[in-house]
Amino acid sequence: MKNYNIAVVGATGMVGRTILKVLEERNFPINNLYLFSSAKSAGTSMEFKGKSYIVEELNNASFDRDMDIALFSAGGSTSTKYAPIAASKGVVVIDNSSAFRMDKDVPLVVPEVNESEIMKHKGIIANPNCSTIQAVVALKPLHDKYKIKRIVYSTYQAVSGSGVKGVDDLKNGLANKPNSFYPHPIANNCLPHIDVFGENGYTKEEMKMIEETKKIFDDYNLRITATTVRVPVSNCHSESVNVEFYNDFDLEELRNTLKDSPGIILVDDPEKNLYPLASLANGNDEVFVGRIRRDESVDCGINIWIVSDNIRKGAATNAVQIAESLIKNI
Amino acid sequence: MKNYNIAVVGATGMVGRTILKVLEERNFPINNLYLFSSAKSAGTSMEFKGKSYIVEELNNASFDRDMDIALFSAGGSTSTKYAPIAASKGVVVIDNSSAFRMDKDVPLVVPEVNESEIMKHKGIIANPNCSTIQAVVALKPLHDKYKIKRIVYSTYQAVSGSGVKGVDDLKNGLANKPNSFYPHPIANNCLPHIDVFGENGYTKEEMKMIEETKKIFDDYNLRITATTVRVPVSNCHSESVNVEFYNDFDLEELRNTLKDSPGIILVDDPEKNLYPLASLANGNDEVFVGRIRRDESVDCGINIWIVSDNIRKGAATNAVQIAESLIKNI
Repeated sequence: MKNYNIAVVGATGMVGRTILKVLEERNFPINNLYLFSSAKSAGTSMEFKGKSYIVEELNNASFDRDMDIALFSAGGSTSTKYAPIAASKGVVVIDNSSAFRMDKDVPLVVPEVNESEIMKHKGIIANPNCSTIQAVVALKPLHDKYKIKRIVYSTYQAVSGSGVKGVDDLKNGLANKPNSFYPHPIANNCLPHIDVFGENGYTKEEMKMIEETKKIFDDYNLRITATTVRVPVSNCHSESVNVEFYNDFDLEELRNTLKDSPGIILVDDPEKNLYPLASLANGNDEVFVGRIRRDESVDCGINIWIVSDNIRKGAATNAVQIAESLIKNI
Repeated sequence: MKNYNIAVVGATGMVGRTILKVLEERNFPINNLYLFSSAKSAGTSMEFKGKSYIVEELNNASFDRDMDIALFSAGGSTSTKYAPIAASKGVVVIDNSSAFRMDKDVPLVVPEVNESEIMKHKGIIANPNCSTIQAVVALKPLHDKYKIKRIVYSTYQAVSGSGVKGVDDLKNGLANKPNSFYPHPIANNCLPHIDVFGENGYTKEEMKMIEETKKIFDDYNLRITATTVRVPVSNCHSESVNVEFYNDFDLEELRNTLKDSPGIILVDDPEKNLYPLASLANGNDEVFVGRIRRDESVDCGINIWIVSDNIRKGAATNAVQIAESLIKNI
């Protein structure tokens, strides 16, 4: 089995660190590992499989080495600048930022949903937004079987989605220290505001969920709306999702379809107080689904509650899964 | 101006205490005030307008005095047992429990919405569920103007909705003390579970929102579904509400309609990071609405974010408003 030369860009961040953990857990076949960060964190020493690595400052020459795959997780501006440089040097970029997601030449991939898109890449593959990833993993088998007409998303998103700054803001707020990162206190509050507002009144996070879902399902007839909300939870996003189908369903069959689909853990036994929770999903790679019930307000609809670890399946794990799929085909 | 003899049943609870505060703030014309509780809290001394009152244990003879109105907030079983006794003695009961809400002989009232129902009472008037009250205050002017076809509710409900036990559970959880009240930790979690589960998979809280909204609007053709979620917030419920109308609207006109309607404060200036928040609604009697935007996934729809103090407008204030309306007509 071949081993690959892998770079992690943004290695010291919350997602970068988790990418390293996931690569190690899944025993990704690595030959050389290169870790990059901004000047601020360069020089940091990080462990991988018991060996120490010094984080290097990212620059134009970073990708001049023999590299197969670079996993980027250092924000949109770093990706915009360096991902094309890496790609031009033959390194396949798996980008966790939103910079290239809607680019028609860039596959937007959740392996459980549209793995075959990966090999259409032209050097860059985009990792979708965290809140989109968990939703499409859960909805894909239902879309295949009953054809989705409309989705109404309402999210309950953890502060880890904002990185260390968000996590610190919640901690500081609960300790009655002044907040700084979010525009309002996140402790004891639900902020209906994730990413910037657009002219249509939707946030960029809401538009990501709407547009990325359509692109991943390659179905631009889907009707989707979204309200995305930051809640005072450290990690794992929860989602209340209302789905309308074209075709009718048997609820037990629908539930079994979810149970038998990849990447999903069905937790749906209300009588025993069993349903997906952030505390249950934390540290896991699967998408947890439950509270599945018929929506009597439409002909063929359900309500479903979807929870996943936004740093793992919503970012790091999904990126590593894309890399795993890629090396099967290199 | 006449003064009235008022009883507060469940006076020592979170809602009972707030009822006393609201009666005092609004200078409700009180002659004699009687405070009742269970045996456990009886004997407690409480202040009202600078005067001390001893809380009495509720019993079958409690309503044998000259009383006009009894505000009940001591749970369903107390209401089931004692509200009919009070009513049979000519005391008008304003009941905050769910015991009588769906009874066809009991008006279910939010004064901004259906005040005229009050005088149809036969001794008992029901105060709706907290999450329903704030929703219908916001939706009433829109239903009048554009006629609502369908509502999808997703709620973000504070622990104060469970009373002192819920508030303590959150505090203990954040302090890493073992939890006890909720079936799962509420700190760092969103629990898609409020009240008990029914056979159709919906919780009683969800069914309350669905059924009470229809009764208050006296419109049983409304299509409604709901997902109700407990979040780690001390006080004030937030709601992500998707609404479909029969008639089209101009978004600015719709926004102005809300702004000009009773009991509503419009906070909708995303560019300035202004939208309804628990921290903003806390301690206020109004319903805060914002994040109003057209839902492009249906012909005539909007998304709206609704926040209110569940202990005040969601319980105590609404009950006192019903009492105020009642005495205008006694």
